[in-house]
Amino acid sequence: MTRIWVINPNTTRAMTSTIEVCARAVAAAGVDVTGVTSEFGPPSIESHYDEAMSVPGLLAAIQRGEAEGVDGYVIACFGDPGLDAARELATGPVIGIAEAAMQTASHLGRGFSIVTTLGRTIGRAEELAERYGMSRFCRGYHACEIPVLDLETDPMATKLVTEACREAVERDRSDAVVLGCAGMADMCKRISEEIGVPVVDGVTAATLTVQSLVTMGLRTGKRGEFATPPAKEYVHKA
Amino acid sequence: MTRIWVINPNTTRAMTSTIEVCARAVAAAGVDVTGVTSEFGPPSIESHYDEAMSVPGLLAAIQRGEAEGVDGYVIACFGDPGLDAARELATGPVIGIAEAAMQTASHLGRGFSIVTTLGRTIGRAEELAERYGMSRFCRGYHACEIPVLDLETDPMATKLVTEACREAVERDRSDAVVLGCAGMADMCKRISEEIGVPVVDGVTAATLTVQSLVTMGLRTGKRGEFATPPAKEYVHKA
Amino acid sequence: MTRIWVINPNTTRAMTSTIEVCARAVAAAGVDVTGVTSEFGPPSIESHYDEAMSVPGLLAAIQRGEAEGVDGYVIACFGDPGLDAARELATGPVIGIAEAAMQTASHLGRGFSIVTTLGRTIGRAEELAERYGMSRFCRGYHACEIPVLDLETDPMATKLVTEACREAVERDRSDAVVLGCAGMADMCKRISEEIGVPVVDGVTAATLTVQSLVTMGLRTGKRGEFATPPAKEYVHKA
Amino acid sequence: MTRIWVINPNTTRAMTSTIEVCARAVAAAGVDVTGVTSEFGPPSIESHYDEAMSVPGLLAAIQRGEAEGVDGYVIACFGDPGLDAARELATGPVIGIAEAAMQTASHLGRGFSIVTTLGRTIGRAEELAERYGMSRFCRGYHACEIPVLDLETDPMATKLVTEACREAVERDRSDAVVLGCAGMADMCKRISEEIGVPVVDGVTAATLTVQSLVTMGLRTGKRGEFATPPAKEYVHKA
Amino acid sequence: MTRIWVINPNTTRAMTSTIEVCARAVAAAGVDVTGVTSEFGPPSIESHYDEAMSVPGLLAAIQRGEAEGVDGYVIACFGDPGLDAARELATGPVIGIAEAAMQTASHLGRGFSIVTTLGRTIGRAEELAERYGMSRFCRGYHACEIPVLDLETDPMATKLVTEACREAVERDRSDAVVLGCAGMADMCKRISEEIGVPVVDGVTAATLTVQSLVTMGLRTGKRGEFATPPAKEYVHKA
Amino acid sequence: MTRIWVINPNTTRAMTSTIEVCARAVAAAGVDVTGVTSEFGPPSIESHYDEAMSVPGLLAAIQRGEAEGVDGYVIACFGDPGLDAARELATGPVIGIAEAAMQTASHLGRGFSIVTTLGRTIGRAEELAERYGMSRFCRGYHACEIPVLDLETDPMATKLVTEACREAVERDRSDAVVLGCAGMADMCKRISEEIGVPVVDGVTAATLTVQSLVTMGLRTGKRGEFATPPAKEYVHKA
Repeated sequence: MTRIWVINPNTTRAMTSTIEVCARAVAAAGVDVTGVTSEFGPPSIESHYDEAMSVPGLLAAIQRGEAEGVDGYVIACFGDPGLDAARELATGPVIGIAEAAMQTASHLGRGFSIVTTLGRTIGRAEELAERYGMSRFCRGYHACEIPVLDLETDPMATKLVTEACREAVERDRSDAVVLGCAGMADMCKRISEEIGVPVVDGVTAATLTVQSLVTMGLRTGKRGEFATPPAKEYVHKA
Repeated sequence: MTRIWVINPNTTRAMTSTIEVCARAVAAAGVDVTGVTSEFGPPSIESHYDEAMSVPGLLAAIQRGEAEGVDGYVIACFGDPGLDAARELATGPVIGIAEAAMQTASHLGRGFSIVTTLGRTIGRAEELAERYGMSRFCRGYHACEIPVLDLETDPMATKLVTEACREAVERDRSDAVVLGCAGMADMCKRISEEIGVPVVDGVTAATLTVQSLVTMGLRTGKRGEFATPPAKEYVHKA
Repeated sequence: MTRIWVINPNTTRAMTSTIEVCARAVAAAGVDVTGVTSEFGPPSIESHYDEAMSVPGLLAAIQRGEAEGVDGYVIACFGDPGLDAARELATGPVIGIAEAAMQTASHLGRGFSIVTTLGRTIGRAEELAERYGMSRFCRGYHACEIPVLDLETDPMATKLVTEACREAVERDRSDAVVLGCAGMADMCKRISEEIGVPVVDGVTAATLTVQSLVTMGLRTGKRGEFATPPAKEYVHKA
Repeated sequence: MTRIWVINPNTTRAMTSTIEVCARAVAAAGVDVTGVTSEFGPPSIESHYDEAMSVPGLLAAIQRGEAEGVDGYVIACFGDPGLDAARELATGPVIGIAEAAMQTASHLGRGFSIVTTLGRTIGRAEELAERYGMSRFCRGYHACEIPVLDLETDPMATKLVTEACREAVERDRSDAVVLGCAGMADMCKRISEEIGVPVVDGVTAATLTVQSLVTMGLRTGKRGEFATPPAKEYVHKA
Repeated sequence: MTRIWVINPNTTRAMTSTIEVCARAVAAAGVDVTGVTSEFGPPSIESHYDEAMSVPGLLAAIQRGEAEGVDGYVIACFGDPGLDAARELATGPVIGIAEAAMQTASHLGRGFSIVTTLGRTIGRAEELAERYGMSRFCRGYHACEIPVLDLETDPMATKLVTEACREAVERDRSDAVVLGCAGMADMCKRISEEIGVPVVDGVTAATLTVQSLVTMGLRTGKRGEFATPPAKEYVHKA
Repeated sequence: MTRIWVINPNTTRAMTSTIEVCARAVAAAGVDVTGVTSEFGPPSIESHYDEAMSVPGLLAAIQRGEAEGVDGYVIACFGDPGLDAARELATGPVIGIAEAAMQTASHLGRGFSIVTTLGRTIGRAEELAERYGMSRFCRGYHACEIPVLDLETDPMATKLVTEACREAVERDRSDAVVLGCAGMADMCKRISEEIGVPVVDGVTAATLTVQSLVTMGLRTGKRGEFATPPAKEYVHKA
């Protein structure tokens, strides 16, 4: 039995549930997917500050997973917070949803558009696109200006995201759309049907990427930069 | 039942068998993987000329697959021949093994090395790395100078490829290795154990990428560049 | 006497005639330029599939040329199909019209615009611009949405292409225009006069590039990637 | 009176002292520079994990500084941890020492070499060089394999770093050296005299960059990505 | 006493005065800043020709400065004319105002806009942005189409430049503005207050960069490309 | 009759003679090529200072050429000094020898090596390679450390340059060599025969590029950046 943890690095359990449902829906037989909520940190990630402050909670979750022998991890926030540190801690593979979503979308044509929540998160998406070599595929970054937690509660949310996707594809002349927030995972299919263009959700894409890596027996190379961090006496917050 | 064809774009059936075994070994329950040999063209692909001449046979295989309702395709040659044309023809996703191998290796650390057969194929690997946004991850291109078909018959082949991988990792200080030929698929695990570094084979990586795309219901965007080609009266070779 | 073949990789002889007239018009004294039509393949190249399927016919033409001792070749389609394979086969230089047109236009200012036929060919133009190092000069890719073969028959064609060029220059603030189809070769001068901006046709640019290379005694380096392909027994189409 | 805080994001006070001495030595009249030690987190930063875990302590220091009306901040670790989040929190400018050191070295010639502590930190330096647009100036990344805290205690440290710098300059044919650790700040002058090449320390470079920005009245743009983060109820660690 | 010369490479003394006032206003105690007017060449720099013809006068000023033991130099024209040659001649650091302005603006957010005088100078700004690694930060190049010398005499000039800055920031969604002409130095503060976005003037930025380099004892590396030029007998203009 | 001036921007007439002989040898019937020596400036160009000081003499030569109705110009120094300014002044095309040599070599394989005179000129070659989009083709920059004027007088010069070329090709695994100095023009054929690899001389390449542009009726776009410079009263050197 392969065990994959999909870690929501914010503390909002409702969001973890949505994510877990989406991730489980695509997992192969014999793969057990669990949604895990970060135990401390921000309730949603909408700034560099939120993101930075979410990382210790995320890494604590990775450490719990290691203690339980988890086979691989998804970081379920489109900023891919703490990815490098998580790769140092984990024995198995760790994949961010931005990483997986962009690479998946790169298979679907010449270029894709990203549609995210708040405009202030676009800078981070650009940075990640470059890091993963995906800038050349990303034709435009768009925001629907819906706060993360409103995605679940605002009855207009799906409609607004759908319209943002439609406009993005027109303006960018792109072949596909990437949804730029884990909280949009459950809108993916509906938007795609609505606008007639492939739409990629990072939660499912990353879950399947981890599953594939585990199947192939592949994990982070541990001989250099990503070796287990040297053990140290940390000073704890008073 | 999901059906995936792994198309060997050269005409050597023995090589298709090896490829098929490797691809089947990783497929999920409910996914049927078939190795398909190109019906005409070169017996191995070791030059731009071989590669160009392999494309019509590959595309004919895609057309047969479409007639049979195949769900997705792998192009099992590290030059990813005919990828764009295949995406125009196919309804489902098409993935090249260089594309899948490089993206997979990008998840395993800061950088990887590529080890291919003949030195003259390195230029093509460089070109593909750039196309897929993977140049930034690829720290070195290396050749073991074994012709493709000798990989199966030369008793020293695995040992030579292993040594080339070991040297590549040392010289490039890389975190992983990508094997640059479909004919190396069955060496992958052994080399990794031997050198203690993750080694990626494109055949399995691409098969799992196609499987994941089909699971997510994703296929090539068809509204622009990759729409079905306009029907035309071709002149056939006399 | 220097002999240059300008190969039209589609099978439409009328188009070869136009191309030949344009190429001959610029050749120096003592240089014999012949338009050669591919003997099999698509009647026009408007998709990746068309392009891929045009390559064997093009390469067969190169092989005929080699048998006749031709000094250099132009590939007269803006997708530069089969360029690398042709360079392996040919003793003398081989130049694509996209390659020559873009490099020529790079001498005329800070940046140029490309105006091509169908929008679906723009992806290939982008790819080639990058391959030749010309992305930094190309400020915009534009399509006039006229199918290739209509360029000769549609009485409005020149006017429509001219307007597309005029708009492209305005929008991109560019110094020159590159015509993105061999079938536009004979419109070049007229458009330039009309819009008051230098307009580059790849057929003449490539013919003169080949002529210059032959004059300097330069040909493809043959010690590595572009050495003559290893001889092999191919399987022919049933 | 302008007040600048140079924040050491690890918890080792001795290192802060060294840093403070170096920073004060270059400050202009009327500029008060204070070294500030992070109150919790790792004793030294030698992995992605250490770096991620140092960020909350660093950001808490920024928040204390804001309460006290500090004019600008230096992040005194060559990984520039938490830079984006710090810019959201701070009213005045925030500069990382890698950022300042690389940009300073870019003024001194065509290219520089970076000499850091442990080889495993090189990946982060590469990433930052790209982020700041400095990859084109950085000709080589080198490690002397001395742990951060040994820089102060190992009597051979200066000699070893000096030799690493000398070799780096020879191998890379570079015009200058960047020291890749705040703990090397006090070696800077001596190494430069020893090897006859300009050597840049990021602590002094960043202090002067902050001082210059404050003098010019420049601070982070606050209308978009770097606006103050939205206030939220965080869950605290149990 | 540190002595810095801010060299105006055109021959218009009124412009030098404005520049000198701005530069002196930011210099630290103990730093003597002198505005120096080029003794021959163009009255303003608005073309590649003007720029090329300004270089000998600029270099003559550097040579006078060297004879007087000047510690560092600013080249006060946004084309940074003669920068490499000046670095060969000078013992101390030499900084161009485009170089300093762009690097300074890179500290203020994700991206900035450049607003220059005539549209025909934009090409040079693009070239410099690339040279300094700043292309990734520059989101747009804009011209207000006011000739350089009219900046001081046209009563509408500040208003027009302000409006150009406001529009640039809106269109580019940028965090800061860079003023693309030394003649705009004295407008900087007012524009920033007007539009509520940080605005960077290269004259002050470069003066402070030189001051910082001198404080740190840093100067151009002299072992390779920027060594003193070999002495030669030049032919002088008849 | 087409008239092309090949301008040697240094004042050494013997070098102009060599250049003229090489350029004339490749010109087509009906094309008159004249070598022109700069009337003032440095006797050879081996530093940024030499290069900057050569530009006014070069531009004066262009102005004389314009008065005589010359059709196009070659700038015969591998630093391509004054290229942009010359393009503003000239009605017809202007080509630098580095520009032409690199683009010509890009047609001959995947990559080339550059062999220049003094190591201190390599920085400029790198800069030009980037400007022309040729960095991706240039696999290595090498110096033979022979001063420019010794190329004609040192009896060992050809041998030393040949060996530098041979080593460059081996080390870089490149397909061709570019000679990085106009003074090497007459060595080109001999080196190529000696080392069995295509060798490109910029003087002949640029002459043929200009000839081709004139044949096609192409000249610098004059509607924007490269329009004739605004007329101004210059201050002349006392």
